Amino acid sequence: MSLQRLSSLKPYQTETSPCKIKLSSNENPFEMSESLKQKILENMNQVSFGRYPDPTSQQLKELIAQRMAVKADQIVLGNGSDELIQLLIIIAAKLNQKVLIPTPTFPMYQVAADIVGRPKLEIPLNSNFELDVTRISQEQLQSIGLAFFARPNNPTGNSFSVDQIRWVADQGIFTVIDEAYIDFSQQSHCLDMALNSNHIVVLRTLSKIGLAGIRLGILIARSDVAQIIDAARMPFNITYPSQIIAQTVLTDGIDEINSQINIIKSERDRIFNTLNVYPQVQVIPSDANFLFVKIDNANHVHKELINRGILVRNMSKYAGLNHYLRISVGTPQENDCFLAAFDTII
Amino acid sequence: MSLQRLSSLKPYQTETSPCKIKLSSNENPFEMSESLKQKILENMNQVSFGRYPDPTSQQLKELIAQRMAVKADQIVLGNGSDELIQLLIIIAAKLNQKVLIPTPTFPMYQVAADIVGRPKLEIPLNSNFELDVTRISQEQLQSIGLAFFARPNNPTGNSFSVDQIRWVADQGIFTVIDEAYIDFSQQSHCLDMALNSNHIVVLRTLSKIGLAGIRLGILIARSDVAQIIDAARMPFNITYPSQIIAQTVLTDGIDEINSQINIIKSERDRIFNTLNVYPQVQVIPSDANFLFVKIDNANHVHKELINRGILVRNMSKYAGLNHYLRISVGTPQENDCFLAAFDTII
Repeated sequence: MSLQRLSSLKPYQTETSPCKIKLSSNENPFEMSESLKQKILENMNQVSFGRYPDPTSQQLKELIAQRMAVKADQIVLGNGSDELIQLLIIIAAKLNQKVLIPTPTFPMYQVAADIVGRPKLEIPLNSNFELDVTRISQEQLQSIGLAFFARPNNPTGNSFSVDQIRWVADQGIFTVIDEAYIDFSQQSHCLDMALNSNHIVVLRTLSKIGLAGIRLGILIARSDVAQIIDAARMPFNITYPSQIIAQTVLTDGIDEINSQINIIKSERDRIFNTLNVYPQVQVIPSDANFLFVKIDNANHVHKELINRGILVRNMSKYAGLNHYLRISVGTPQENDCFLAAFDTII
Repeated sequence: MSLQRLSSLKPYQTETSPCKIKLSSNENPFEMSESLKQKILENMNQVSFGRYPDPTSQQLKELIAQRMAVKADQIVLGNGSDELIQLLIIIAAKLNQKVLIPTPTFPMYQVAADIVGRPKLEIPLNSNFELDVTRISQEQLQSIGLAFFARPNNPTGNSFSVDQIRWVADQGIFTVIDEAYIDFSQQSHCLDMALNSNHIVVLRTLSKIGLAGIRLGILIARSDVAQIIDAARMPFNITYPSQIIAQTVLTDGIDEINSQINIIKSERDRIFNTLNVYPQVQVIPSDANFLFVKIDNANHVHKELINRGILVRNMSKYAGLNHYLRISVGTPQENDCFLAAFDTII
């Protein structure tokens, strides 16, 4: 049948062991305050779920623009960054051009390229998990139409050199800089680079700072670029509840979110310092809300943590990462439990 | 720049004149009961918006399967049918194969084919708005990889002959039967056709029966076909609030929805009978929750209705439809207002 191309596709999968402490999906671990939740429910009560949502999400775009110090017409919203990644793969390169993907990175770039049916050029990061674009040959360069860079990178947690990314963009390649984790980073962002180019865009998300459940991906680009991409998205892609919830959090919940981000950053540094003491553990310095940890018996540690009700991400199924775990930063109490369990297991 | 292909795209647009009575988007016009809304808010209160939703939407799929008398593994959910339409265009035909689209029909088939970059073969319906596939030449047939049939059709409201659709599928063409409006139809559905084929799928939606705001499209196919398509969708495409709201409505709100559907059907027949009396008006018999009306001075009537706070869909911007309006069925009170205004204008 016509679907044959897809029958060998391996979809993106996440671990779903029913653990009490979930440190596996880089979510914001804090529960929303009761007052913010009540405000959301009050606003939801005004909504007619039977009506189509605002196809332009105008109010929400204005709030996001304000937070990011850009203009609303420089923003395109997606049903999670996933939708924007897929859309960019569909529209931003010619059919036969390759999608450049450094590895390891966020798996969705590869998954979406496979689904859309675009050829990939995967280049491994160097031994420090840094980008090394000089290894790309002239011939390979010319085959590339689109490049994805997660910065900070997932799962490694480090931030690629901006010069390396800019060098790729300077070859005329449509360049996507995915800043999903930028709120936890000390590094400067790349918004200015995007706003001054006709072929660089930045991705952001509300998923890592407290709203993974409502799926809100954000693309920032120069107005003319953003408008073309916006015209290519499905018209009602942001649901009515997602618009209302995000609007409420970005007005009434902004202090709460910002203070949670600060706690997550200081907890990340605490976990780093604690793990870094073990001679058999190598922790990669992180600009994100998770830690990437090398440990010889990663499979065993992962399993023993599950036995203690703690789920971290086992990276061993990915090529070259068979000694690695990715540990999301939890609440202080969750991190205490994790560190105690880790110490016992080690 | 690389986005050049798209710069001539005309995105899907809806009218958004701020009218008190909105009969333009084929929504369920009834407000949800207070008790159902409270139940939704109670259930929403249990949700951690900071967590990713269930990527399989398993509970929701089981409720939908029950309503449609199919199995949960025969279902794929989309962020509205729009996402499923785009996904099918991406995966269900080879890159150079054409997408067969009868016209006039739901514009999203054309919009999505243009965005994805697939060639279209548009075949006009005959003068009775019926499908006439015998006019497709053998050469044309062989160029087609995928066909869309909205049944009942939007905006015409009639139901294409199943034999004509089956004939297309029998040519080995991957066939999508979009039953968005089937809840308002007296005609039999095509679920059995889909469940017994490896290249026929049915689309349904919750948008027309009361949940347009949460964007829930439904694909039904034989289990093996559904599983391949499910693996190609983005993993977290149904938001947490949408899952909760749909689950609540499909349990606690099902009687309410069904009784609203019955009122809409009888109101549709009332509007049909009333409009049918005017000699200068031609109303097409409808299997949907809207009426397709031919009237010489359609632009004038449309504008005069807006002046009276009533928005209907002016079809005159579509080729061959310059004398047509599409009027969604409203609440009995809204329909009274519309009919009175219409009478005055005429």
